[in-house]
Amino acid sequence: MTTTAPLMNQALGLAAQALYLSSPNPRVGCVIAASDGTILGQGFTQQAGGPHAEVMALRDAQAAGADVRGATAYVTLEPCAHQGRTGPCCDALIAAGVAKVVASLEDPNPLVAGQGFARLRAAGVAVEVGPGAAESRELNIGFFSRMARGLPWVRVKVAASLDGTTALTNGASQWITSAEARADGHSWRARACAVMTGIGTVLADNPRLDVREVPTPRQPKSVVLDSRLETPPDAHLFAADRTCLIYAAGPLDPGFSTRKAALEARGATAVLLPGSAGQVDLHGALHDLAQRGVNELHVEAGYRLNGALLRQGLVDELLLYLAPRMLGPGRGMADLAPLESLADGLALEFHSTQMIGPDLRVLARFQHPPWF
Amino acid sequence: MTTTAPLMNQALGLAAQALYLSSPNPRVGCVIAASDGTILGQGFTQQAGGPHAEVMALRDAQAAGADVRGATAYVTLEPCAHQGRTGPCCDALIAAGVAKVVASLEDPNPLVAGQGFARLRAAGVAVEVGPGAAESRELNIGFFSRMARGLPWVRVKVAASLDGTTALTNGASQWITSAEARADGHSWRARACAVMTGIGTVLADNPRLDVREVPTPRQPKSVVLDSRLETPPDAHLFAADRTCLIYAAGPLDPGFSTRKAALEARGATAVLLPGSAGQVDLHGALHDLAQRGVNELHVEAGYRLNGALLRQGLVDELLLYLAPRMLGPGRGMADLAPLESLADGLALEFHSTQMIGPDLRVLARFQHPPWF
Repeated sequence: MTTTAPLMNQALGLAAQALYLSSPNPRVGCVIAASDGTILGQGFTQQAGGPHAEVMALRDAQAAGADVRGATAYVTLEPCAHQGRTGPCCDALIAAGVAKVVASLEDPNPLVAGQGFARLRAAGVAVEVGPGAAESRELNIGFFSRMARGLPWVRVKVAASLDGTTALTNGASQWITSAEARADGHSWRARACAVMTGIGTVLADNPRLDVREVPTPRQPKSVVLDSRLETPPDAHLFAADRTCLIYAAGPLDPGFSTRKAALEARGATAVLLPGSAGQVDLHGALHDLAQRGVNELHVEAGYRLNGALLRQGLVDELLLYLAPRMLGPGRGMADLAPLESLADGLALEFHSTQMIGPDLRVLARFQHPPWF
Repeated sequence: MTTTAPLMNQALGLAAQALYLSSPNPRVGCVIAASDGTILGQGFTQQAGGPHAEVMALRDAQAAGADVRGATAYVTLEPCAHQGRTGPCCDALIAAGVAKVVASLEDPNPLVAGQGFARLRAAGVAVEVGPGAAESRELNIGFFSRMARGLPWVRVKVAASLDGTTALTNGASQWITSAEARADGHSWRARACAVMTGIGTVLADNPRLDVREVPTPRQPKSVVLDSRLETPPDAHLFAADRTCLIYAAGPLDPGFSTRKAALEARGATAVLLPGSAGQVDLHGALHDLAQRGVNELHVEAGYRLNGALLRQGLVDELLLYLAPRMLGPGRGMADLAPLESLADGLALEFHSTQMIGPDLRVLARFQHPPWF
């Protein structure tokens, strides 16, 4: 069909409008169109617990008095087949008399995973899968990661000078990049389900880790890796009315319990996940975050936590803001061990580059074994 | 005139064909067109001592039997007014009966500097200046630098990992970037008048510093900063049949004289320019290179020479190839002193970014006081 590409692009554009909104649900857009391409209704997935894209599009058509019987629904992910907080979307499409569904991808959620398509076909609805697949997967990379690996998509944000310095030898690091770059960084916080840092950054910078520079309908969770629970109960990250998770390792002495109680009194959830050498089990923490519905995890941490995550192969993507300056000696991006051979380096590939004000934003992905 | 922009763009395209060819003369293109825009002849400046763009265009028209009387010449720099190795171009245009000259820029060469325009106008030729000025200056940034400052345009090439490492702690550095990036680096060598390195790199890597990966009609000079004349007479950089300059500082002991004689026997020119602390006077060396006709100087050196040039504010541009990998601790880009404040960093601005194979090429310019 010559109309598929523009209508699916329209649906993908709608899905992108759910970027800061729908998590932990995927970002999905839906366009319902007549056979001549006339759009009858459109929508995108709302906040968790709210209607999905297909229901929004059906309601939009209904509000306009449009008849969707015999129409085609263009949807960027397989319509769901399970009863969650909302009813199954495939049933809503069937009930409305839609004749055909064009979907970008099968839903990797094991509760769906082809059952939506099967139920549509069983009801006599034609199903086509594929258009817009790459874009839809990209938009939902965290959701796919969580479903396929049981881990969030881990994106580490770093601000550095062109020569790789993230802080001077005296510790000065605010600000290496521009206000524009920091605002752009907040848009990446906003799309994440959680923003994570380490206790070193909490004690040094007392960050809020919230989204302030761009409008957002919800705040991501805040997450601190804090082996001995040293986060001060008056830390700024408690100020916002939102979930705060603190991963700790112990030791479980009386002071630990006292500190735990004080943090929980501030509304934080302390999760004990001891790993080796008195550190938090990082893989365990990421797995726990996925179980709590975290699709994309945005890490804004220091040299140590960045290094620990990188050395354990737990980082998927580097979001690097390079300022057009040279700062000479100081802190690097991550605490990595000296290598014997260049071939032992951590391999990435460039995904995108863009000027953000005077700075250069580089998105690069680690070359892990393929998992979806 | 509606025809100016496309015809001047054509002339700029011709000028770009002189990129590896015309130095120390500027890269200039010329299009001679009838009033209806029909191109009668075109050309670009040839190898030093050969014809300039205007003469090439006049010859091209003549070869085609075209009558250029009353025509307009579009030329990317003011036609020369002085007798060099070739005759003055403005006289050739006047003699050919051209009615109008549209030029991008006044020639900054004090031997020309408006005299070409004056002589054209005195002969009744209309003169318009300005179209294509920015592009022409950019193409001739080294020529303008040499004329306006008496210094070459200094471009420092660095290959680094994404985290700013240029060599591992064990010294390994070949190769951090890809074959594509190295070939691209040779195209920047090819456009330069000279390629400079330090004695440390000569002793460690024994580089040839020539252009091998791309075709070129000429080789840039090779230049070594070598305070004590420690360059081995069998160094690879003598292999190519081309000018080699070695800047030295002494001390002038008998061994120095012996080494100097050995290097001169290999065809090198040793220039004694002592600065402070037993080092070569870097500013003096650059000034000397400009006097020898070097417009663009391509620096491929190590941590020390890069640092010395940067600390003295002698670098105009950073040509940075970033490989998509993280290498951790090792050599940085340049030996710079620790800073007290972020504001003390060396300020640049991004000029362009481009993917070269798997690597990212970043061209960034230092924010010097304006000089042209």
